[in-house]
Amino acid sequence: MVETQQIEPGKQEIVLAEVFDAPRELVWKACTDPDLISQWWGPRSLKTMVEKMDARPGGLWRIVQRDAEGNEYSFHGVFHEVTQPERLVYTFEYEEMPGHVLLETDTFDDLEGKTRMTTHLVFQSVEDRDAMLQQPGMREEMEETMDLLAKLLASQKRAAPAR
Amino acid sequence: MVETQQIEPGKQEIVLAEVFDAPRELVWKACTDPDLISQWWGPRSLKTMVEKMDARPGGLWRIVQRDAEGNEYSFHGVFHEVTQPERLVYTFEYEEMPGHVLLETDTFDDLEGKTRMTTHLVFQSVEDRDAMLQQPGMREEMEETMDLLAKLLASQKRAAPAR
Repeated sequence: MVETQQIEPGKQEIVLAEVFDAPRELVWKACTDPDLISQWWGPRSLKTMVEKMDARPGGLWRIVQRDAEGNEYSFHGVFHEVTQPERLVYTFEYEEMPGHVLLETDTFDDLEGKTRMTTHLVFQSVEDRDAMLQQPGMREEMEETMDLLAKLLASQKRAAPAR
Repeated sequence: MVETQQIEPGKQEIVLAEVFDAPRELVWKACTDPDLISQWWGPRSLKTMVEKMDARPGGLWRIVQRDAEGNEYSFHGVFHEVTQPERLVYTFEYEEMPGHVLLETDTFDDLEGKTRMTTHLVFQSVEDRDAMLQQPGMREEMEETMDLLAKLLASQKRAAPAR
């Protein structure tokens, strides 16, 4: 379950926050390592391929998702700030809706071994934000994605326990 | 004078639009060519130096301004989209206020030889936007900057008249 959702009417932003039972460096890695991202980014029904993930200022990222029928959905953007393990700032564009860009800021707070990840999306307009929210299944997908990330972090923790 | 200013209370954006008596390619050049940018970007009282202006997706930009006392004010960001001569989308950060990033979209519309430039700034919060607007002299500086750009475009048109 997403811990906090801040989606106020008439605003052009969304804020989501979630606490994960994993150290900050591990949550950071799950958000920047292509092999890990492909295991949690997006709903279970789609295969996620990380084509580019150059996490440095000016670095490009691109993710392609494929459904069972072979349809592809792609997303891309560019990193503005990469401050390990605290903060990522980058642009985000869904290629099915070209020309609509958002600015995403992911903040990782250390809570004595746990990590709060805050995802802050700023859209070019209220209409852009609401169009995204009104995509069928969008809210369920956001929940599912956070759930998949929590499960991945748990399995990574088991594989490499904190020293 | 700035043609249109859209600064609504409680919103996290600013929209400015201005019509210039110059062809679109020339306005585009004035906004992407370092030698031209340094002639209009920012108020007259500051010397503007374009340190980087790599106008392509993922390209970095950085501008340094120096006042008569030698104090420097720097700005930087990264390009998300560069669609000549129609649209630029990039991030923008004032280095005196680190961690506050905005997403800027500049759109250039061809009006049969004249050009409407629309500048759309989206901030991470209403507070960030209002803090920028409340900087002493900010509104006058925006007017002065648009005025300097209009003068530069007029002199460029005289130097290389349309064929």
